[in-house]
Amino acid sequence: MDIGVEFSKGEEREDFVGNKVRPSIIFYPKDEGEVAKVVRYAYERGIPVVTWGAGTSLTGAVECNGCILIDVKYMDKILEVNEVDWYARVQPGVNLEYLNRKLAEKGFFLPPDPASFFLCTVGGATANSSGGMRGVKYGTFKEWVLALKVVLPNGKVVKLGEPLRKNRAGYDLVSLFVGSEGTLGVITEIWFRITPLPRRKTFTVMAYVKDMEEAGRVIVEVRKRRILPEMAEYLDREVVKALNKHLNAGLKESDGGLMLFSVEEDHLEDLLDVLRGNEVVVAEGEEAERLYSIRAQSAIALRAEAKHMVVEDIVVPVSKLPEAIKRLKEVERKYNVRLPVIAHIGDGNLHPNILYNEGEVEGLFEEVANIAIELGGSVSGEHGIGTQKAKVMALQLLKHNGREVLDIMEGIKRLIDPKGIMNPGKYVELAKKYAEGSGENY
Amino acid sequence: MDIGVEFSKGEEREDFVGNKVRPSIIFYPKDEGEVAKVVRYAYERGIPVVTWGAGTSLTGAVECNGCILIDVKYMDKILEVNEVDWYARVQPGVNLEYLNRKLAEKGFFLPPDPASFFLCTVGGATANSSGGMRGVKYGTFKEWVLALKVVLPNGKVVKLGEPLRKNRAGYDLVSLFVGSEGTLGVITEIWFRITPLPRRKTFTVMAYVKDMEEAGRVIVEVRKRRILPEMAEYLDREVVKALNKHLNAGLKESDGGLMLFSVEEDHLEDLLDVLRGNEVVVAEGEEAERLYSIRAQSAIALRAEAKHMVVEDIVVPVSKLPEAIKRLKEVERKYNVRLPVIAHIGDGNLHPNILYNEGEVEGLFEEVANIAIELGGSVSGEHGIGTQKAKVMALQLLKHNGREVLDIMEGIKRLIDPKGIMNPGKYVELAKKYAEGSGENY
Repeated sequence: MDIGVEFSKGEEREDFVGNKVRPSIIFYPKDEGEVAKVVRYAYERGIPVVTWGAGTSLTGAVECNGCILIDVKYMDKILEVNEVDWYARVQPGVNLEYLNRKLAEKGFFLPPDPASFFLCTVGGATANSSGGMRGVKYGTFKEWVLALKVVLPNGKVVKLGEPLRKNRAGYDLVSLFVGSEGTLGVITEIWFRITPLPRRKTFTVMAYVKDMEEAGRVIVEVRKRRILPEMAEYLDREVVKALNKHLNAGLKESDGGLMLFSVEEDHLEDLLDVLRGNEVVVAEGEEAERLYSIRAQSAIALRAEAKHMVVEDIVVPVSKLPEAIKRLKEVERKYNVRLPVIAHIGDGNLHPNILYNEGEVEGLFEEVANIAIELGGSVSGEHGIGTQKAKVMALQLLKHNGREVLDIMEGIKRLIDPKGIMNPGKYVELAKKYAEGSGENY
Repeated sequence: MDIGVEFSKGEEREDFVGNKVRPSIIFYPKDEGEVAKVVRYAYERGIPVVTWGAGTSLTGAVECNGCILIDVKYMDKILEVNEVDWYARVQPGVNLEYLNRKLAEKGFFLPPDPASFFLCTVGGATANSSGGMRGVKYGTFKEWVLALKVVLPNGKVVKLGEPLRKNRAGYDLVSLFVGSEGTLGVITEIWFRITPLPRRKTFTVMAYVKDMEEAGRVIVEVRKRRILPEMAEYLDREVVKALNKHLNAGLKESDGGLMLFSVEEDHLEDLLDVLRGNEVVVAEGEEAERLYSIRAQSAIALRAEAKHMVVEDIVVPVSKLPEAIKRLKEVERKYNVRLPVIAHIGDGNLHPNILYNEGEVEGLFEEVANIAIELGGSVSGEHGIGTQKAKVMALQLLKHNGREVLDIMEGIKRLIDPKGIMNPGKYVELAKKYAEGSGENY
């Protein structure tokens, strides 16, 4: 297998949530040219290609059996931080936290902050269009990628877009590749839009709410009052308990759990007014940072609670949050399971986490996704589809968008990857299969 | 031609810059169902379909000869302004200024503000992914469209995306259709993301700069200091003169022309420091609004200066602005023409306007576009491609991106519009023809 690129035999790996990755061989390219060599090799032989950043996918997006795995661990260079043109040009294997530390030294940041920021690569976050706590103000990765270099399935290297915020030269292929989960090509370089660190001080507001319904009321009111937080999070009572137990978070265990906001001064008074009636603490500086970091570790604390954890990632319109919360509780009761909720509540993105020790929870998983679909939301806000959500994604598209939309997506996949070697059998391709195989339900 | 949709015979129209639109028939649908009827009719007969909003395209995007023209003048309803979910759901024929007036009543706005805002429709601005003065802070339309309803070329009605800021269900087809210039389908409904009107006062800063080079220096320095303006505009000396002459603007006529900034208080001191050495006036309230409105009318004032005007729309990396300015002056001397520049200088987007009374200016047009390509920029930031820029767009894609990128774009066009009836012979299709017909130059 010597094609002039470092490789090892295909030892089995596990992703962050335990999915098996069983490659036939693993390549470790050092640059774009070497990635192209590997892809060409795979293309000529029709072998599936999966790209591995840090394996933090929560949806089975890097599962494989017999694939060629491209591990980008050597492609970990920050190539340029342009302080006039406000972009960072990086290789896919750069760690996200490392990039932001380097940007901060120059007074900039890249806002999206998935909870895995200290583990994940920027390539993975781009392929997945990840989000995070700052999404409520700054959106997800798709809003922060200016241009890409990619190796297409036939091994050709191209650049998509320009490192400019304004560019109208052709259809927007950058947005097509961001969030395509490795199914259209291999990302070898990314130009991220970066922005100055905020000049204004923010205040972190903790509110121990009286019950979960109160969290829904609060966030609807926040939006009505046009309060624009930098962060608006919610951890239910179970999550707070797990944080105290496994990470000594020292949080108060109220009945309704904890809301966590970050706002600039001119929004603070309005926010405190909305929160009236709940126990509120305002933090700054180190204590604020500690809370941010605790929040980022919520999922890790929860994982310690059971043998298995399946993470949902539904979004509902903010106006439907009270209804969504009510229905989640009904489902919890019906299935008699533990379903603690971590939420980027400010943008309607809820992560109900299914904790269980045995059996299977597919029915429950789908029922939760269905709540989102029925309320006009989405089955995924930031974790993506992979193999985990292909079925419910098909359901969403058929109910909200139209069968032709899925056909177009699959047509694009075939257009760009005619041999079907790029991370095959997942996402759009798999959703299409579900839609075709289905009867009435779809 | 009675298919149950109001129609008239195909009277000739002219777009904003004088391109001829010669339809064989004009339909005036009242809703999505009627649009679908018209498109189905066209699809069955293989007749080209062009959609008309307000005809403010600057690039020949609505030119046609013998097409079916869909005039969306009756589809002018704001269907919903959701004050909790922060979106506006509108029909394509809504006037942009009208929408923003209605949003302002509820404390919101839709930031992108093309200079034609008082004329253009939101459908046109979406199909074109238009920009404007606030682009430096808020980007262009592509950053503000959450979801779309479109009639596909075969007459099927689908919804693309969800009215949610976070949605990972499938490839991003919304971004594909925004800026597709009517070549992929007819937009019948748009969900715009809206945001609260800023709480903070802004200051408008006018600087009469000593020469055009100074404008380049200033903006590079603004970026280095990480000043984030809401607006950073530049009008050269010729533009200022035209504004005084035709619109009684009462501006001072300095050698270098006028820079116009809008900044929040905590950026003001830094900005004034950068501008030191130039004559500076700080305005607020009504005077600031008057300056914004004068700026928006610059192109109208220039148009009165010659029989013909061709508007360029190049973007260069901000760091390359000084070089771009130098080269524009060289071109101006070489061709001995008037080439006044209006610029969204804060994001590197320059509008050199070719003024002439006779002859043709194609060579000059291409040379200006070439400056952008050579400096790593784009031939269009916000006006789009249409017929006007297809050749230079091909050049840009071949030089910067790779021939395969144009192939993929054209493949997508054929996938979605296999009969080639949607605004045919322009944009991606036409660029592809140029690329194929070309020899060495491409």
